[in-house]
Amino acid sequence: MDVAAYMTELGQQARAASREVARSSTAVRNQALLATAAALDAARSELATANSKDLERGRENGLDSAMLDRLELTSQRIDAMIEGLRQVAALPDPVGVITDMTYRPSGIQVGKMRVPLGVIGIIYESRPNVTVEAASLCLKSGNATILRGGSEAIHSNQAIARCLKQGLSEAGLPETAVQVVSTTDRAAVGELITMPQFVDVIVPRGGKGLIERISRDARVPVIKHLDGVCHVYIDSHADPEKALKVAVNAKTQRYGTCNTMETLLVDDEVAEDLLPLLAEQFRSKTVELRGCRRTCAILGDIVEATEEDWHAEYLAPILAVKVVDGLDGAIEHINRYSSQHTDSIITENYTRARRFLTEVDSSSVMVNASTRFADGFEYGLGAEIGISTDKIHARGPVGLEGLTSQKYVVFGDGHIRT
Amino acid sequence: MDVAAYMTELGQQARAASREVARSSTAVRNQALLATAAALDAARSELATANSKDLERGRENGLDSAMLDRLELTSQRIDAMIEGLRQVAALPDPVGVITDMTYRPSGIQVGKMRVPLGVIGIIYESRPNVTVEAASLCLKSGNATILRGGSEAIHSNQAIARCLKQGLSEAGLPETAVQVVSTTDRAAVGELITMPQFVDVIVPRGGKGLIERISRDARVPVIKHLDGVCHVYIDSHADPEKALKVAVNAKTQRYGTCNTMETLLVDDEVAEDLLPLLAEQFRSKTVELRGCRRTCAILGDIVEATEEDWHAEYLAPILAVKVVDGLDGAIEHINRYSSQHTDSIITENYTRARRFLTEVDSSSVMVNASTRFADGFEYGLGAEIGISTDKIHARGPVGLEGLTSQKYVVFGDGHIRT
Repeated sequence: MDVAAYMTELGQQARAASREVARSSTAVRNQALLATAAALDAARSELATANSKDLERGRENGLDSAMLDRLELTSQRIDAMIEGLRQVAALPDPVGVITDMTYRPSGIQVGKMRVPLGVIGIIYESRPNVTVEAASLCLKSGNATILRGGSEAIHSNQAIARCLKQGLSEAGLPETAVQVVSTTDRAAVGELITMPQFVDVIVPRGGKGLIERISRDARVPVIKHLDGVCHVYIDSHADPEKALKVAVNAKTQRYGTCNTMETLLVDDEVAEDLLPLLAEQFRSKTVELRGCRRTCAILGDIVEATEEDWHAEYLAPILAVKVVDGLDGAIEHINRYSSQHTDSIITENYTRARRFLTEVDSSSVMVNASTRFADGFEYGLGAEIGISTDKIHARGPVGLEGLTSQKYVVFGDGHIRT
Repeated sequence: MDVAAYMTELGQQARAASREVARSSTAVRNQALLATAAALDAARSELATANSKDLERGRENGLDSAMLDRLELTSQRIDAMIEGLRQVAALPDPVGVITDMTYRPSGIQVGKMRVPLGVIGIIYESRPNVTVEAASLCLKSGNATILRGGSEAIHSNQAIARCLKQGLSEAGLPETAVQVVSTTDRAAVGELITMPQFVDVIVPRGGKGLIERISRDARVPVIKHLDGVCHVYIDSHADPEKALKVAVNAKTQRYGTCNTMETLLVDDEVAEDLLPLLAEQFRSKTVELRGCRRTCAILGDIVEATEEDWHAEYLAPILAVKVVDGLDGAIEHINRYSSQHTDSIITENYTRARRFLTEVDSSSVMVNASTRFADGFEYGLGAEIGISTDKIHARGPVGLEGLTSQKYVVFGDGHIRT
């Protein structure tokens, strides 16, 4: 197979389809989403058959149990995909929203119209339900999509792709508005990320290695989410009860998520009082603590943290703990080691809360709240295609609006510039 | 000189300075801008001396008169730089603006805070006044800047840099908040665009060749402005008087600007009536017309356009003219050949105006107005660092807001996720 020629064809088709999707009405795009939901519901047995092929091959290829779990399309997961499509259909349409329409001294009227980005390339790993999630958000926001899932999920993804095509076709949209790459040749990724003439933005979803590789080689803008090294800083003016509650929640509510706290910072002034209470709570949840020297001096029986621990995204019941010299020490540590994902201060002090919000340069900054809230659903975006740790275009949870841009619209009445 | 080590040093200093600028008050940043204005005013003779060195070397190196003109720092241009600084100081500060603060069902309050991007790299060609313009916009929006001007303007730029340092220092900001690269070694550009750890975004200002080269090699996001192939489409429902007025203005008000019309599209239904009137007007302004077959058949005595003409950004008194089959033909031509800069429809028809606005995928779309209005000042942005022909982050004229991003702020009261 000539992968370059195949990807060029997908690109050309996506570009053409993107224009049709961009000018389609809200109702038509919603109809395509609902028809896809119905098609998935009707295709449960085909989906199960396709998925069992992938699972079988996965077991033969020695995938570990976590990967096999992510690969599996259980009946509940199909239910969730269907429900997700219905939820996306129910969200307000961002496309065409006009804002800030004002008259200028010249007499022209200028405003901004929200418009789709065009063609979005999604590159992801084993979970086949991402195919539906990502395609639905891109379609709702008026974009065409090219999806490249993991080779281990190829049969499941192709079965899902057939449902998407059916949904698009029933709504009168081009089937090429959502295309799932049918080759497992890795060269397809290299092509996808180097076709700026056909693809407007790439959203990679997966491990840090994948995302770094894509960012390095891409010739198309990438909305990327690297890692989540999130901090909670307990200030000397913290309410101890809130501090304990939030710190424990931020670490232990779920271990494997990117908004989980990985380093706890405690103000020197309250470290002797609070660290033993915190340690007790974490010990009861079997969280391993790795402390700085001062932390070790107070707690005695824990492992000393190394430089690596301050950079670590454990995604596991391990927590780095550091005693810092007040707010300045906390901000310095965070701006050095944070991945700029989500950081929270626990304090009752107005001025310190304000300084933390201003001076911590992360995509979500919080006061007296658990880092676990950093999420498109919790923020009210309705859905989320990912969490951006980039600085341009979109920071933090990216919903439908992050898949659009704004163009200027100008109304005149024969106005000319003089 | 070790260019890599030198650029790394600039990068580290810029990153450190960016944190100080980001947390500085509006008043302090405005003070730095006004102090720079005063410093430039006091340094007129140094500026003239430095500039005459550049001009002399330019003449020796055989620069053409257009380049020498752009290089020259006349007294009026120094006045304009000073006035520009005062205007930027008077603009509202975008930094820290909080919007969309809402309570979520969980009880947390979520909103967005506008924040600087961090460090902005500017790469530009001969005009030394860009040094002040770009530095002032970046500083006002809370960013640190590294500026790399053309080697032909090195003495002028260094003299301006001294005034900027003085202004920053008088306001108590780090002098490294604005750094002008002091080496003319071209390797400096290569370093600047590949330091994502120190530079958050690159804004190149210059010819298409420069921008394409930078975009190709950059490892940092680029806000780019490629070319301006702008269209005016005269619909069959156009008011002929407005059509003539706007078409002539869009082409002839200035020839060398990116928002100048380069191709005129005329609806077949009115071509026979309007083309002779248009041709007469353009002939009186000595604009050369290059027409499609149908245009030539109507006008008789003009050159036939080739495929290249539809792609051309003439920046000169030349205009490509095409007769199209109604709105569909116009949209098809524009979406194929436009550089997605600015396109305008002349029509009295409500439905066609709406379709043009929705279906033309350009950063500015206009109804009954001259393309020459596509400009940060005309749009009310107060200033403009460039016009983006990109789709992500910012489209069209980029002002202070385009040099910022938004982070999420979350207020809780000990809230945890359940």
